Amino acid sequence: MIKRFTLPEMGNLWTDLHKKSTWHKVESAGLWAKATMGEFPMDVYDLARKVRITRKVLARADELEKRGDHDLIAFILAVTELLDDMVKPHYHTGLTSFDTEDTALALILRDCLSTILPKLKHLRDVVFERAIEHKYTLQIGRTHFVHAEPITFGFKLLGWVDVLDRHIRKLEDLAVEIGIGKFSGAVGMYTLDPEIERLACEHLGLRPAKISTQIISRDILSHYTATLAAVANSLDRFATEIRLLSGTDICEVAEFKEPGAHGSSAMPCKSELGNPIKSENTCGLARISRGYLTPAFECEVVWCERTLENSAAERIYLPDLSIIIDFMLTRFTKVMHTLVVFPAQMERNIWKTGGMVFAQRVMIALTQKGMHRHEAYDILETLGKKVEHGTFVMPDGSTFRDLVYGDFTIAKLLSREELDDCFDPKTVLKHVDTIFARFVA
Amino acid sequence: MIKRFTLPEMGNLWTDLHKKSTWHKVESAGLWAKATMGEFPMDVYDLARKVRITRKVLARADELEKRGDHDLIAFILAVTELLDDMVKPHYHTGLTSFDTEDTALALILRDCLSTILPKLKHLRDVVFERAIEHKYTLQIGRTHFVHAEPITFGFKLLGWVDVLDRHIRKLEDLAVEIGIGKFSGAVGMYTLDPEIERLACEHLGLRPAKISTQIISRDILSHYTATLAAVANSLDRFATEIRLLSGTDICEVAEFKEPGAHGSSAMPCKSELGNPIKSENTCGLARISRGYLTPAFECEVVWCERTLENSAAERIYLPDLSIIIDFMLTRFTKVMHTLVVFPAQMERNIWKTGGMVFAQRVMIALTQKGMHRHEAYDILETLGKKVEHGTFVMPDGSTFRDLVYGDFTIAKLLSREELDDCFDPKTVLKHVDTIFARFVA
Amino acid sequence: MIKRFTLPEMGNLWTDLHKKSTWHKVESAGLWAKATMGEFPMDVYDLARKVRITRKVLARADELEKRGDHDLIAFILAVTELLDDMVKPHYHTGLTSFDTEDTALALILRDCLSTILPKLKHLRDVVFERAIEHKYTLQIGRTHFVHAEPITFGFKLLGWVDVLDRHIRKLEDLAVEIGIGKFSGAVGMYTLDPEIERLACEHLGLRPAKISTQIISRDILSHYTATLAAVANSLDRFATEIRLLSGTDICEVAEFKEPGAHGSSAMPCKSELGNPIKSENTCGLARISRGYLTPAFECEVVWCERTLENSAAERIYLPDLSIIIDFMLTRFTKVMHTLVVFPAQMERNIWKTGGMVFAQRVMIALTQKGMHRHEAYDILETLGKKVEHGTFVMPDGSTFRDLVYGDFTIAKLLSREELDDCFDPKTVLKHVDTIFARFVA
Amino acid sequence: MIKRFTLPEMGNLWTDLHKKSTWHKVESAGLWAKATMGEFPMDVYDLARKVRITRKVLARADELEKRGDHDLIAFILAVTELLDDMVKPHYHTGLTSFDTEDTALALILRDCLSTILPKLKHLRDVVFERAIEHKYTLQIGRTHFVHAEPITFGFKLLGWVDVLDRHIRKLEDLAVEIGIGKFSGAVGMYTLDPEIERLACEHLGLRPAKISTQIISRDILSHYTATLAAVANSLDRFATEIRLLSGTDICEVAEFKEPGAHGSSAMPCKSELGNPIKSENTCGLARISRGYLTPAFECEVVWCERTLENSAAERIYLPDLSIIIDFMLTRFTKVMHTLVVFPAQMERNIWKTGGMVFAQRVMIALTQKGMHRHEAYDILETLGKKVEHGTFVMPDGSTFRDLVYGDFTIAKLLSREELDDCFDPKTVLKHVDTIFARFVA
Repeated sequence: MIKRFTLPEMGNLWTDLHKKSTWHKVESAGLWAKATMGEFPMDVYDLARKVRITRKVLARADELEKRGDHDLIAFILAVTELLDDMVKPHYHTGLTSFDTEDTALALILRDCLSTILPKLKHLRDVVFERAIEHKYTLQIGRTHFVHAEPITFGFKLLGWVDVLDRHIRKLEDLAVEIGIGKFSGAVGMYTLDPEIERLACEHLGLRPAKISTQIISRDILSHYTATLAAVANSLDRFATEIRLLSGTDICEVAEFKEPGAHGSSAMPCKSELGNPIKSENTCGLARISRGYLTPAFECEVVWCERTLENSAAERIYLPDLSIIIDFMLTRFTKVMHTLVVFPAQMERNIWKTGGMVFAQRVMIALTQKGMHRHEAYDILETLGKKVEHGTFVMPDGSTFRDLVYGDFTIAKLLSREELDDCFDPKTVLKHVDTIFARFVA
Repeated sequence: MIKRFTLPEMGNLWTDLHKKSTWHKVESAGLWAKATMGEFPMDVYDLARKVRITRKVLARADELEKRGDHDLIAFILAVTELLDDMVKPHYHTGLTSFDTEDTALALILRDCLSTILPKLKHLRDVVFERAIEHKYTLQIGRTHFVHAEPITFGFKLLGWVDVLDRHIRKLEDLAVEIGIGKFSGAVGMYTLDPEIERLACEHLGLRPAKISTQIISRDILSHYTATLAAVANSLDRFATEIRLLSGTDICEVAEFKEPGAHGSSAMPCKSELGNPIKSENTCGLARISRGYLTPAFECEVVWCERTLENSAAERIYLPDLSIIIDFMLTRFTKVMHTLVVFPAQMERNIWKTGGMVFAQRVMIALTQKGMHRHEAYDILETLGKKVEHGTFVMPDGSTFRDLVYGDFTIAKLLSREELDDCFDPKTVLKHVDTIFARFVA
Repeated sequence: MIKRFTLPEMGNLWTDLHKKSTWHKVESAGLWAKATMGEFPMDVYDLARKVRITRKVLARADELEKRGDHDLIAFILAVTELLDDMVKPHYHTGLTSFDTEDTALALILRDCLSTILPKLKHLRDVVFERAIEHKYTLQIGRTHFVHAEPITFGFKLLGWVDVLDRHIRKLEDLAVEIGIGKFSGAVGMYTLDPEIERLACEHLGLRPAKISTQIISRDILSHYTATLAAVANSLDRFATEIRLLSGTDICEVAEFKEPGAHGSSAMPCKSELGNPIKSENTCGLARISRGYLTPAFECEVVWCERTLENSAAERIYLPDLSIIIDFMLTRFTKVMHTLVVFPAQMERNIWKTGGMVFAQRVMIALTQKGMHRHEAYDILETLGKKVEHGTFVMPDGSTFRDLVYGDFTIAKLLSREELDDCFDPKTVLKHVDTIFARFVA
Repeated sequence: MIKRFTLPEMGNLWTDLHKKSTWHKVESAGLWAKATMGEFPMDVYDLARKVRITRKVLARADELEKRGDHDLIAFILAVTELLDDMVKPHYHTGLTSFDTEDTALALILRDCLSTILPKLKHLRDVVFERAIEHKYTLQIGRTHFVHAEPITFGFKLLGWVDVLDRHIRKLEDLAVEIGIGKFSGAVGMYTLDPEIERLACEHLGLRPAKISTQIISRDILSHYTATLAAVANSLDRFATEIRLLSGTDICEVAEFKEPGAHGSSAMPCKSELGNPIKSENTCGLARISRGYLTPAFECEVVWCERTLENSAAERIYLPDLSIIIDFMLTRFTKVMHTLVVFPAQMERNIWKTGGMVFAQRVMIALTQKGMHRHEAYDILETLGKKVEHGTFVMPDGSTFRDLVYGDFTIAKLLSREELDDCFDPKTVLKHVDTIFARFVA
């Protein structure tokens, strides 16, 4: 992934140095298991652990790879050069490349989730806090991007909390599923004793695969990808919402801008108008992450005990996906944490249609007074047609609400107080507490 | 594809009856070619053509298929029962199933394009007409969904014409590419004389494949899919625009509603507010069509002289994609043809920010009077910060424009007339004619 | 989905009749809840339930839809015509279309999973049985499609059981997640009392959504799609394996053919050679199902309290995906249940390279006798180079194994018995019982 | 893209240095156009061109970007610091960021195609040469991965040439389409005179966009992506074929291995058996490239005059896709150029079924002697059933061919010479010259 979208902590998990250090860790765990089984003294393990994987080792491995075209074999050779003679005959013995690679991958992916999952939970907390903050902040609800009925901004955010809660649960399950190692040899039939696999995995904090071929089945990796891409997908929805609500025609929220930030070199007022570039960025990265579903799913379909197509694809999409999700979470959490909200503008927008969004309430009130629903509907629809589309006023400036208050048929059934009640957006708050009570911090 | 999204003309191209009639047409063309080559009298062809593929034939073929699990073989048997004895020994002789199937598919896809391409051109014409109609209808241009500078609505639509023109050219190329038949036998090595292929294809108005295996290479079908999905993709963009512009907060356009149509059973004024459901529908179908890129691309990768995975996938995605694109074009053309445009509202929206969108013009005017660009930028930015976000007015109701007119530093350099000119949205029309002149009806 | 790939039980869940009957069920549950809350007598509910949704009702609804372009409103009107006057004022009152639609969808998807999940478990059982049957059936393991080391065919199948077990667990979780209804009104703020939602959902065997907008969040549906497509993806892998192993050059398995089935009208021996058409079909359908990830993920991204793009897409991909997975499971289970296995051919294939696949074992034996690994590797590699690629014999017919037995350096270290042991494929069975013991029927 | 899959020439096109040098080139072209129009002396242009974009400039731009969060603005500022005072007021004046960025992108993509297209043509030439080389090399054709009828290996390769020819034509068209620049300002309405756009584009060897918004329509980039991914897709098919044919059970081809290359550290004979890792790598990268269809298509759907989602996505997928395709072409061309072919093994495989693949020819010969097709089919099918599946011999070693020669009914109609002719694979060569004649070098 390009540097621009790579945060250091996650980026470090995917460096060549970290990968190969993890390979060494896995190889060492194999030695530990064999020593525990009594194959040789534990000193062999201790001596192996003393070798550190440095940039110098990597350089040597790169040199050797040029000759043999196989990165793990080259790495083993490079490390072996540094190993004590006591260790040399045992290092990687009985293992196949993907014993090391897939077990190391499990460790790296586990660490990725250890980075991502707390960020996801933090985002949930931040959104929940903002939801509480705006629990009673009235806002117009929009369906088809058209004004429908009022909601509160906190209620909108609470819906996101619900989505994030599902993702948290799924990532927790995923973190368990992904934690699988293997030391079962070239075709999974165990060149080494299965007990070595059990011990080595335990040593690494992993479970041994119940069964494997040369590799661990890739359904686990397509699940990893689908689960992370699903998080990105929800962020796409949330960020799209921020983009809609921060448009000049709505102006209900704005991304926080650092003082001194300019929106455009050409347009002096653009920063006031506020381009939601971090949310747009979130949407853009979500598209990339969705694209990785393709290689991830296809890569499960290997032939027989394994073919190698997955290798190239996984070298690309696994780091890229993990890094992007990590970046998106960090960036979008900041957007939400600092989001500027304009409650007065939200309230103004409720009234943009001159009260049309309360027509349903008037209709219900009329039917409760005995008018046929159909008749009530017609009266209100007719009044609604009178105002100009866009301004929602009559030539004389009167609104839908004014028309309702001035309608004789309505006046016969509904008092001014009753009408006031119909047009009171606060009625929407009736069940807000109930809904919020279903969620905990 | 479900009935809801299937128009009769296109749907008919994908019925079992039409498919099998086309198979018969291809088989007959083979007979015609052989007769032309002198293998037997032309009567054989004439007699074959007399057999019509009816529902009864299909029923018989279905019955036979149950025994043998192969739809083309069953069809050949069913037809053979009806053939004159003179024809029987020759019908399908020397052909492999996919000589018939792929050649027939080419004919059907060609007919699909013959339906789709004129609709695409018609959409282009409709959009172009609306563009001409609103060539000078001022509208605010939005970047990041934030007001930027004025454009005209016709200019916006003209951009779509440009996109459609590219699609038209690509579909014309595609219609040529797709027109390929084959009679080259089980593995493409010609059981029959290649001359028969040439003649039969010519008879059908197709070109013979330069080379084939059991099948014609599927790169052509992935190209068909990518080209059609790309059309859907552009419609997705256009329909998204309609959805944005018809939102209550913008109200610049609206889908035409038939008198009597109700937007919502619950909300009496929803039809006035105008849900853009046809545009939403267009976006939804575009998503489906994009999804077909996956099977279309994967289906090219067959093994050796062919494997059968493509068969099931193509039975589904080729009709579904073709039918959807046809439906989308018809529906969205209607949307565009009848689109209600609100020029007065468009003009009002230009002024929603109290003139901030003209700040660049003021800045340029100031620099032309000798002020440093940086200084001009700062003055205007400072004025822009004074008005309230959302209402874009000061507590006393004065706008950005008022502030500019009232600023002493500015007043020293720019006269009232010069400022009037800066704030005149019509200046945007300067190059409109030039741009339009690049397009022809 | 086309009839060819639709099984009746699953197809029935997606008919217009079933959908609208389910709508009526949901509407009735709403009445039950209101009656339970004391809004009106339970008779209202009983009378509503007496109305049956028949084809005649559907026809009437279709007629009404033509006028109003809204299928649920038309349906409500059609049912209302049949309702007792006592019920009329209450039917659908206080509900928005998607209270009914989304709740009904949850019921239908739950039924889909009730069909699919047992089939998935059945496939697991069938594969497990075949794995047990061939627990000790030796077969060459292939990596890179190249012979590696022996496995057993049962071991190969057991790996699939492991994958299926993961899918079963995920579908069980999914069946819980999907079971959510809503009666929360136009924007999720509860026109009706939340208690009605709770009661109505309970009545339907669903949980009430903790929160909803006009609709239930689509992250649940993209999860449904990803989970089902993942099943299809694993079947793709398994079916690909069947296709590879049944190729003429391998001939280790064959799909069972009904007596009388012909492979090709042109090639009389093709049925003996055995085209694996059901497995190819499985792979083809998997491609279609993977394609639905695109609309499913995109459909989560709605604007504000909902936009309608998801509607068209879900009308297509939800039934199509569900029907395909159901079909694939049934078909592929049959393939596995009746799969013809050729153990003798499997054993022959182990020896196809003249014993090269045992070279590692000879190398290990040599090193255990004190030879340097590098030296042993070189000796064996040199011997391996002597035989002809493809036939794997010397001009005199001697094999790699013969060369090893005849090599003086080797003979000095390894006795005939020790070599026999190296070349004994049965050594691979050493840990088979251990691996199988990890799985239960 | 990771270093492993990045070739220097293509990698250099996507460095920050090259991107920003290209920005400077575009800015300079704007100056050239303005000078040509007489806005200022040509010296301004000459002085601007003297400034070179060095790593130091990039470092300065990075520093400035940290403050303002906008890479192009920061770059303009960094360059401006180095510009002669005469140039400063004119550099970037009247341009919007994407005038520079999109025009520079067009130049970079054009250069990508200038790298890719010759490689594609070279691959076509290499495959064509190998096709000519093996024009008459007999090989069994496989359908459903099952032996069908003989072809030649050259014929197989010639089919790939046909596919590559179509891609070449499409890339040539694409290279024209992609060559579009814009200098039309913030919303495409021309802050500058359109003539400046025309001149500047001409200066850069581009065409001016007929119309643009803030950006050039992304349908062009989704077309770029679809066209390149389609090339990768065909390589996927070809590489899959190499992988199948080089499997131990077929052994008809092998990737060339450098002397000293080892296939496996564990298995001494694996290099002889020959893992087709370069072809597997090609397939893996194809999966990644197909995944970029998702962001490419989605990125066309921007709102109004542009939103920014495409930016992040294009920063990733455009270089990654271009670099991968370039790498794949280079690698797979090498595979094809050096591919080891085993004609003797190909011939042996034709006979693997003991002649069953000639059964159709015997059937036709029998019918030509007057036997009913059905009867002939039955006789041959019955004989085919006698041999063992897998070995394709009788217990006594006799083959299908032996059985045919020994069958009395057949013997009555066909002489030994006539049967010899039926079983002569060379008959397949009859039309080979005709097919090859359709292609030119």
